[in-house]
Amino acid sequence: MPPKRQNEDSILRKIANGSRSSWSRAARKSLAMGIGDDAALFRPKPGHETILTCDWFLEGTHFLREKHAPDAVGWKCLARALSDIAAMGGTPGCFLLSLALPETHTGRWLEQFLGGLRRASRKFQCVLAGGDTTRQDKILINVTVVGEVRTGHAVLRSGARKGDLIYVSGRLGEAELGLQLLRRAKVSASTNNPLLKKHLYPEPRLELGRWLAEKKIATAMMDLSDGLSSDLARLCSASRVGAVIRADALPCVKPSGTPGGSSKLPSPRDLALHGGDDYELLFTARRGALPSVPWKFRGLPIHPIGQITSGSTIVLAEPRSTFTKLRALSPGGWDPFRKRL
Amino acid sequence: MPPKRQNEDSILRKIANGSRSSWSRAARKSLAMGIGDDAALFRPKPGHETILTCDWFLEGTHFLREKHAPDAVGWKCLARALSDIAAMGGTPGCFLLSLALPETHTGRWLEQFLGGLRRASRKFQCVLAGGDTTRQDKILINVTVVGEVRTGHAVLRSGARKGDLIYVSGRLGEAELGLQLLRRAKVSASTNNPLLKKHLYPEPRLELGRWLAEKKIATAMMDLSDGLSSDLARLCSASRVGAVIRADALPCVKPSGTPGGSSKLPSPRDLALHGGDDYELLFTARRGALPSVPWKFRGLPIHPIGQITSGSTIVLAEPRSTFTKLRALSPGGWDPFRKRL
Repeated sequence: MPPKRQNEDSILRKIANGSRSSWSRAARKSLAMGIGDDAALFRPKPGHETILTCDWFLEGTHFLREKHAPDAVGWKCLARALSDIAAMGGTPGCFLLSLALPETHTGRWLEQFLGGLRRASRKFQCVLAGGDTTRQDKILINVTVVGEVRTGHAVLRSGARKGDLIYVSGRLGEAELGLQLLRRAKVSASTNNPLLKKHLYPEPRLELGRWLAEKKIATAMMDLSDGLSSDLARLCSASRVGAVIRADALPCVKPSGTPGGSSKLPSPRDLALHGGDDYELLFTARRGALPSVPWKFRGLPIHPIGQITSGSTIVLAEPRSTFTKLRALSPGGWDPFRKRL
Repeated sequence: MPPKRQNEDSILRKIANGSRSSWSRAARKSLAMGIGDDAALFRPKPGHETILTCDWFLEGTHFLREKHAPDAVGWKCLARALSDIAAMGGTPGCFLLSLALPETHTGRWLEQFLGGLRRASRKFQCVLAGGDTTRQDKILINVTVVGEVRTGHAVLRSGARKGDLIYVSGRLGEAELGLQLLRRAKVSASTNNPLLKKHLYPEPRLELGRWLAEKKIATAMMDLSDGLSSDLARLCSASRVGAVIRADALPCVKPSGTPGGSSKLPSPRDLALHGGDDYELLFTARRGALPSVPWKFRGLPIHPIGQITSGSTIVLAEPRSTFTKLRALSPGGWDPFRKRL
């Protein structure tokens, strides 16, 4: 059955109607004017500054129309943009959705997409404030998230100093493993498969980021979106330092966690070093702050994985029985100009 | 010669380097953290709220790779997003640039694009604060602009009341005429052609918008991006009113302004009613405010074109010698789900 003919205003109404009834209301206080005008108006709390970030989520580059359920596309496009708010130690406020769709996708696909987006909006307390809609052959998504952070409390990438310990939250490489399994699947994968959960429905570490910023524990912080080897290089470059990472301290996926007969999958260590899309937090803290950094934060493990050094090289230390092998760690994570999905 | 191999970080450096030296510095005070971290930090002046707006600018939908010079693409993608700030009566602060490019366009095309973008940034005092870059076969642009407006002074679409006079700035239909001429041109058109100027290099009416908001003259306001017939319907719908427009009061392009032998071009009146991309301001004001609304604002003409009515219909009144012909005016402007470039 051909889809009902839509125009821009009818699609906007579909998005906005959902907004009134089902988008998160928690952040409404800060939103003086939402959908339906030329622009949205946002009022951060007194003593706070506004955080701004935007993220592409494009068919063919970031997701595949045939393999990724629209519900997961909706969830993930917001969740990954929120991860940048977590990385600054901020609190989400509202978001703008720019959506370009083929006309065939303005019916059921759009509804399921909005369903996933709405669940993420409620879960992470970030309300839809506006956006722009147009037509394209490919599905194109751009999400701008606006948040707030107490003035002077935002954690930047540039604050790491020699001697600081390096930490990551969660387990690294799970999302990349999920992507690899999804690519091998013949059809659209079940969104309930636990091995795919982190790839399809990532959770920005907002509570941890906020806590580390409020307690002034993190000296530098960013989220792991492209892979540890690429992202740590960015943090070190911004802080003008080097780093040494202990290979045996990396929180990898368990080999038993990967399905049998998948011999061509990267090793758990390579997944942890170079796998993208984890949206865990990478942060540094003074050595003296060690007792303040918990092993677990509200159920989420936190692992010390290395230390900041002077210089500019990033070294991977692999302890062997009688010596430690050192090798330079080059950025090998996700780069849209080198790799395709 | 094949373009030099680029990766995401090298492209970001190209954008950010320009930023340090040549982007507008005027708005830096409000920008606590710009390019180079997970997100930007924006501090509106005390007593002000943050304005947020985003806009697609996509190859094939909003511009044509072969016909639109990269310099004009750079200028226009920011200028049109700024028009939404003007429509709220706000002042620009900073913008986020989401850019997806084919690898072949990361050299000269990108440099010329950034040149036009930088000129608009300086002219309209809006500094680049961050963004996201990725690869695609098509050129995809999304711009989020962040501005500020004195709390409570933003002019919404919803404030028009029965009896208010309806005004537009500038001349309507010029940009559409420029587009039509460009489509007929065999090659990329000269960016100096005065008939194309408004289509290629629109100027958001920031000063007028701010003045109308500060003086509390405008009761409702929006920018004309899709065409008067479509945009006025949106303003009336938001205000729950109708309108009557005097056809003879529309500031149309002069027939002498269109080149000879272009018999298939729409009439000046149709260009004014339905042509998109003008980025003029459409606003309403109480009849009593008539003496406060100048005929010209800093050289920009302002025309009263009609009046707000009760009800919900929009009527075009065409005065004839012995009577006035009335007809319903349906939205006939730009709609990406109905038309293509």
